[in-house]
Amino acid sequence: MLSALDLPGNASSVHAEGRAARAVVARAREQVAALCGTSSAHVVFASSATEAACHILTPSFRMGRAPVRVSRLLVSAVEHPCMLAGGRFPAEAVTQVGVDRDGRIDLDALEAAIAAHDPASGQLMLALQHANNETGTVQPVAEAAAKVRAAGGIVVVDAVQAAGRLPVSLEALGADFLILSAHKLGGPKGAGALVASGEILMPEPLVRGGGQERGHRAGTENVAAIAGFGAAAEAARDALSVASAISARRDAMEARMRAIAPDVIVHGAGAPRLPNTSYFTLPGLKAETAQIGFDMEGIAVSSGSACSSGKVGASHVLKAMGADAALGAIRVSLGRQTTDADIEAFLKAFATLNSRRLSRLAGENAA
Amino acid sequence: MLSALDLPGNASSVHAEGRAARAVVARAREQVAALCGTSSAHVVFASSATEAACHILTPSFRMGRAPVRVSRLLVSAVEHPCMLAGGRFPAEAVTQVGVDRDGRIDLDALEAAIAAHDPASGQLMLALQHANNETGTVQPVAEAAAKVRAAGGIVVVDAVQAAGRLPVSLEALGADFLILSAHKLGGPKGAGALVASGEILMPEPLVRGGGQERGHRAGTENVAAIAGFGAAAEAARDALSVASAISARRDAMEARMRAIAPDVIVHGAGAPRLPNTSYFTLPGLKAETAQIGFDMEGIAVSSGSACSSGKVGASHVLKAMGADAALGAIRVSLGRQTTDADIEAFLKAFATLNSRRLSRLAGENAA
Repeated sequence: MLSALDLPGNASSVHAEGRAARAVVARAREQVAALCGTSSAHVVFASSATEAACHILTPSFRMGRAPVRVSRLLVSAVEHPCMLAGGRFPAEAVTQVGVDRDGRIDLDALEAAIAAHDPASGQLMLALQHANNETGTVQPVAEAAAKVRAAGGIVVVDAVQAAGRLPVSLEALGADFLILSAHKLGGPKGAGALVASGEILMPEPLVRGGGQERGHRAGTENVAAIAGFGAAAEAARDALSVASAISARRDAMEARMRAIAPDVIVHGAGAPRLPNTSYFTLPGLKAETAQIGFDMEGIAVSSGSACSSGKVGASHVLKAMGADAALGAIRVSLGRQTTDADIEAFLKAFATLNSRRLSRLAGENAA
Repeated sequence: MLSALDLPGNASSVHAEGRAARAVVARAREQVAALCGTSSAHVVFASSATEAACHILTPSFRMGRAPVRVSRLLVSAVEHPCMLAGGRFPAEAVTQVGVDRDGRIDLDALEAAIAAHDPASGQLMLALQHANNETGTVQPVAEAAAKVRAAGGIVVVDAVQAAGRLPVSLEALGADFLILSAHKLGGPKGAGALVASGEILMPEPLVRGGGQERGHRAGTENVAAIAGFGAAAEAARDALSVASAISARRDAMEARMRAIAPDVIVHGAGAPRLPNTSYFTLPGLKAETAQIGFDMEGIAVSSGSACSSGKVGASHVLKAMGADAALGAIRVSLGRQTTDADIEAFLKAFATLNSRRLSRLAGENAA
């Protein structure tokens, strides 16, 4: 990335500096394609996964030159807000499909939604996350995708949270399109991608007015961020090998949390989860209060998602799972760089907050 | 930028790391606002000027909560391709207004286009560049803007090329919106901005699904690129003081080019131009051929614009000016870092290419 920042060239320019920038982008494209098990010709870089979502979630596609109309978007109720917003679909074309207590899409409800669709109005699209950004719950993507494809529909998988933590093969998932974010993979902010299973069926461009990305996305390429994305994608492939070690540490950490606070609720613990995520609620303790407490102990945790300018609203994910959304939940993430000392520091803070919670609850009961 | 790259936080997160990232973005917002003589609350960051153009060029605005319809987009015939493409306007809603031989918008033709607009169908919008990306020609923006505003229209100024080379005050230009690009100011690739004169009238978001940028542009902020954009905007304000020195060097360079090749055509030389730009044609020498020649001598020049993945097509700017577009033209840019030795190296390469051109033309005449 640093050497790319020093490259003065524009990746679409003809001169030597331009060619050097273009080579950096081409290499990153291969690295991202390799992560998804596809060809580099199928990768369209964007400035973020949110932009890629607005690009792919559209009623207007082309199959070669022929226009293709998509008239219905199905999303699970626990999707990221940028998928729930439906991109370029009008609000009335978006149908939410419910989830179970662990946050997995209700496959019967999905079947009913598919059956309710009138193919004469246009095609059907399912947008489903591979893994949830709050709970880490892994969706039964291949099963859901098979149902949609049997009905001739298009399958879009939000692999933002899963990439680098689980294998994200387009083919194994049965997906037509994947969405990725560089900074969720350990790369820089400022790069995302739409990865297609082929080159024939593509959405109408969102950002147009230049021939970059083979006409799919206009604007001068952010060469440095793309270089970092590529490097992160390559490193993420290697990281998959340590996923089981991370999940073992997470499970051990959660066992100790349960020993400290037997009533702690770990959301999604009944389903397959991402190896690095723990999302929990201490009954009686508001997540916002807990977050401030952790922050003061030097532990950066999230409550809900970080996508609304510092505002912490009730989690739509907890609501959809039937949990107490007013109380909220705290997400703590483990990475390859997380040390045993980090985990001990977190557990110490957890125990401190839990003691305060118990004293307060005891006081309230006595009063 | 480098310290921002090391910031792990998401600028929309509540914890301490998030606050640090947010402070970087806030500072850059003030730096960009100061360049345009406006308040930081009026700056919406984007990933590129192209994205900002697609954001602002839309039929769908809001005045507070009330929808506002724009039914006609006027553009000059020499706009950047991302403006000519018309963003989210349908092709039939876009009207091109011609230019004179030096590339300046034809103000009589603009008046006629305004008179032909039916206000009952919706508002009118003019998108006009402050300075051209090929010729450097400076448009009579304030005069054109006054005509459009007198008719109740919206004025969008593409200040990408002008910013840092000319003062870009929203008020002095009479603009409702400005578009900026970080990397054209000496900043990094990956950041652009839409700068508004107020907060009441705003376009419908292009990238939606998150509350970032006060709801005007969703997606995790590219903190590092935004930091670089802010720093470049601040440096650009200082650079305005050296603009006249740069234009004097450019004029001296062009005088020597004319001495070497008296038939050289310097495009836009009859109009006010950016201080740093020289755009010329050597009759009988195709610009693509000249560009390769300069490249071999280690001089990076452009032919046309760099926005079509290495493809060099006939310049629509030269066509609109009535010049020989098939022959093309070469753009050479001077910056603050350009040394006398750089200019001598360029003139040496220019003389070499000119000699080859004259020999070939003599050979053709003899044959």
